[in-house]
Amino acid sequence: MTERDQTGRPTTPATTTTPVRVALLGCGVVGTEVVRLLTTQAADLAARVGAPLELVGVAVRDVDAPRDPVVDRSLLTADAEGLVARADVVVEVVGGIEPARSLLLRAVEHGAAVVTANKALLAEDGPTLYAAADAAGVDLYFEAAVAGAIPLVRPVRESLTGDRIHRVLGIVNGTTNYVLDRMATEGLGLAEVVADAQALGYAEADPTADVEGFDAAAKAAILASLAFHTRVSIADVDRQGITAVTADDVAWAGRTGHVIKLLAIAERRTGADGAEGVQVRVHPSLVPLAHPLAGVRGAFNAVFVEAEAAGELMFYGRGAGGAPTASAVLGDVVSAARHRVHGGRGPAESWYADLPVLPADAARTRYQVRLDVDDRPGVLAQVSAELAERGVSIEAVRQSPADTPATDDGAPGVARLVITTHEAPEAALAATVAAIRDLASVREVVSVLRVEGA
Amino acid sequence: MTERDQTGRPTTPATTTTPVRVALLGCGVVGTEVVRLLTTQAADLAARVGAPLELVGVAVRDVDAPRDPVVDRSLLTADAEGLVARADVVVEVVGGIEPARSLLLRAVEHGAAVVTANKALLAEDGPTLYAAADAAGVDLYFEAAVAGAIPLVRPVRESLTGDRIHRVLGIVNGTTNYVLDRMATEGLGLAEVVADAQALGYAEADPTADVEGFDAAAKAAILASLAFHTRVSIADVDRQGITAVTADDVAWAGRTGHVIKLLAIAERRTGADGAEGVQVRVHPSLVPLAHPLAGVRGAFNAVFVEAEAAGELMFYGRGAGGAPTASAVLGDVVSAARHRVHGGRGPAESWYADLPVLPADAARTRYQVRLDVDDRPGVLAQVSAELAERGVSIEAVRQSPADTPATDDGAPGVARLVITTHEAPEAALAATVAAIRDLASVREVVSVLRVEGA
Repeated sequence: MTERDQTGRPTTPATTTTPVRVALLGCGVVGTEVVRLLTTQAADLAARVGAPLELVGVAVRDVDAPRDPVVDRSLLTADAEGLVARADVVVEVVGGIEPARSLLLRAVEHGAAVVTANKALLAEDGPTLYAAADAAGVDLYFEAAVAGAIPLVRPVRESLTGDRIHRVLGIVNGTTNYVLDRMATEGLGLAEVVADAQALGYAEADPTADVEGFDAAAKAAILASLAFHTRVSIADVDRQGITAVTADDVAWAGRTGHVIKLLAIAERRTGADGAEGVQVRVHPSLVPLAHPLAGVRGAFNAVFVEAEAAGELMFYGRGAGGAPTASAVLGDVVSAARHRVHGGRGPAESWYADLPVLPADAARTRYQVRLDVDDRPGVLAQVSAELAERGVSIEAVRQSPADTPATDDGAPGVARLVITTHEAPEAALAATVAAIRDLASVREVVSVLRVEGA
Repeated sequence: MTERDQTGRPTTPATTTTPVRVALLGCGVVGTEVVRLLTTQAADLAARVGAPLELVGVAVRDVDAPRDPVVDRSLLTADAEGLVARADVVVEVVGGIEPARSLLLRAVEHGAAVVTANKALLAEDGPTLYAAADAAGVDLYFEAAVAGAIPLVRPVRESLTGDRIHRVLGIVNGTTNYVLDRMATEGLGLAEVVADAQALGYAEADPTADVEGFDAAAKAAILASLAFHTRVSIADVDRQGITAVTADDVAWAGRTGHVIKLLAIAERRTGADGAEGVQVRVHPSLVPLAHPLAGVRGAFNAVFVEAEAAGELMFYGRGAGGAPTASAVLGDVVSAARHRVHGGRGPAESWYADLPVLPADAARTRYQVRLDVDDRPGVLAQVSAELAERGVSIEAVRQSPADTPATDDGAPGVARLVITTHEAPEAALAATVAAIRDLASVREVVSVLRVEGA
C-alpha cells in the first residue's frame, strides 16, 4: 500500500533524492521552454519520476548571447561534448544532422538516454541512433519530432502496437498550413504570405525545409517507419512542396468545394509484384471542405491513423512552437528518467516487417485536372476518351465560360475544363495527364492536384 | 547492430520462443475480437513482443453457448479462478465489479500482469487494484476502459506527464451520443430513439448505465485521476444523464446555434478556501455548432485535453465496439508482454498531488435558461434584475412570440424567454434559477442547460 507522510500526502516508496541529471543541447525557442518546464514544474516532475530532475548544463553556441531570465546563465556551456558525458538524460533541440548526431552518439556511448526533437536526423539516419541506443541499452525517445505537442509517436509505437495500421494521413507542417490557410482566406499569393510569415516569425529566413516539403517528408518517414515496422528514410518519400501552388489554384479549390492542404501520407499498398509494400508521399492535396482536415487552421496539425481493428483515429493539436514542443520533450524526459529510477526501457527500433518501399506510381489516388482548351464541340469527348482509354473514371467535369473569346479570323476561344477523377492508379493518372497535354485542342494543363480524404 | 536471419529479415536479439501466456476472461463482443486479433496477427504480435503470445484459456459462464468460429472451443473454461493462476497476462473484458475484481486480484497475486477494459471497477475501486499490482510488481493497463480505440489513457499517463493538464472535456459515451444525434437529426423523442437503439444493438436492454451517465462518469473519474494525479472515484463525479432531455430541448438547441452533447468534464479549479482542487462532472451540454465536438456523430468519441504547455489537444475515434476496444486491449497486452520478455514495468498509480475533489458548485460555467413568462412589459426587467443581483451577466436574450395569447378576462398571454449567460460560478447560476422560478410572472422554468466549449 502507498504510504502517507506526516502531512497526509502519499509518498511513493521508490522516491529517491538522488537526482536524474538532465543535459540540454540547444537553447532556442524550444530549449528555453524546456528549461521553463523543468524549473516551474520541478516538484511535480520529481513526484512523477520518483527523483528530482537536475538540469546540469545547457550547451549553446554563444554563451554570452541574451537569454530568457528563466535560463540560469551559470549552466550555459559551449562544451557540448563535455556536457553529454555527465548526464543521465540528454535532450537535443539543436536540429540538423551535425553536430547533433555526433553529440547524441557520444551521449549514448556514455550511457545517457536520449530525447530528441530532431526529425531531420531521425529521418536521415535514425537506424544509426537506434543501433547505438540498443547497444548501450538506453532509451531513444522523440515524441517532439513529429507533430509538436500532439501525442502521436507514443500512440503509434505503443497504443496501436496490437493492431495493424493501414494508413497515416495528416497535416504535419504548421508553416505551410499557415501559408495555405492565409492564401485561402485572404486570396493572397504564396510569395506574399511567405514574406509576411517570415516577418511574423512563423517561417524561417530560409523557408525551403517547410515550403519544399522536406520537414513534412521527414515526419512522414518517421511515422511510416513506426506504423509499418519498416525502415523508411526521407529519401524514400515522394515529395512535392507547395511552391507551385498559385492563388488561382486556391481559388479554384474553393469553387469546387475543397481546400488545399499539404498532406503527408503513408500507407500499405500492393506493389507491382503483388507483394505488400509501403508508399509514402507528401504533396499539396485538395481536401473536401466537409473533411475534418479541411478545418485545421493556422499552425495546427492533425493526423489520421487508420487501423484494422481501431478504425479511424484522429489526433489534433499544436504542431510547433516552443511550449508545445517542450511539452512533448518533457513527457519523454519523464519516461526516460523513470526508467533510470525504476528500471526498464522504452521500445527499441522495430523494423521486423521490412516491407519494400514502393515507388510513387504504386499509389492510388484521385486527380483534379484544370485545362485550358479550345472552346468548340468535341474537345470534351477527346479528353474523356484519353481518360477512358487508361481506365480512369470521371467523377465530375465542370466547364466554365470562355476566358478568351473566339477571334474574327475563326480561331476558337478558350474554355476552362475542371475534371475530377475517381480513384485510380497514380501511374494511369500521370499517363492520362501526359496524353491530354499532347492533344491539339488542349492549350494548357493549368494545374494537376491530387484529391485526398474523400 | 540488429542482426538479419537467413532470409534477410532482421531479427531482434531478445526474441525468444518461450511464449507469453495470455488468459482471457469473457468472450462477448470484445473478447471475441481479442481472440481474433491474437489469432490473425500472431506473427506480428510475436515480432513486436519478442516472444509468441499464447492464448491459454478463455473463461466464460457457459462453455456450451454458440461462439464465433475464431474461438477455439478447447480453450473455453468455466473455471476462471484456475485459469488466471496459469497466465502471464490476464485480459478482463467481463465488466462489472464482481467477480471481475476478485479474479483480477487473484491474477495479480499469482504474478500475472492485468489488462482490463472495466471502467466501472476502476472508477469504483481502482486504488485496490493498483495497490495489489504494485505489491506484486506487475503491470495494470486499462486503455480500453476509456474511449474505446482512442489512445487516451497512455497519452495522458505518459506523453503529457511532463506537462500540467488543466482540463479534460469530451464525449466518452457512444450510446448517448448516438441517441442525441438521432434526436437532433430526426426530431425524435428520447424514448423512441433509445428503443430503436436497443433493437439495433447500440444500447443495452437496460440502458441505465449509459442514459443516466454512469458510464461517462466512470470514464471521467478515471481520466481525472490520471490527469490530476489524484484519486477520483465515480462517487466524486457530479452526474446528470440525458433522460430529462426532451425533443423540445434539442430543437431549441438547434435554433440557438447549438447541439446537445453529453459531456464529461474534469478540471482544476480553485475551491472556496482558495486552494486548488479538482472538479469532475457529466451532464448534457449545449455545444456551439462551430465547436469540433458538435460534429462528433453517432457512436464516435472525442476528447479535448488542455495543458499548460501543450495547449489544446483533441483525440477522436471509435469509442466502443468489439474490434476498436480489442485494438486498445491488444496494445496493452503487447506492452505488458514486452515487460515480461525484456523487463521493466508500466507506470504505477500516481496520486501524489492528492487534490481535494470540489463540489459541483465550484465549477464556473454558462447557463441557457428557457422560461415561460407572462407576456407583459416589465417581466424581462424583473428576470434581469435577479441575474444582476447575483453577478450573473447576460450574453443574449431571445424573446419568442407568445405561445398562448392573452385571454378575454385580462390574464396575460405566455411568452418564451431564452437567456444565455456569460460564464459565472455554478452556485450563483443555480441560485439565480431558483429565484427566477419564484417570480410571480414566471409561469415555468422549462429547461436549464449548461453551455460548454465556447
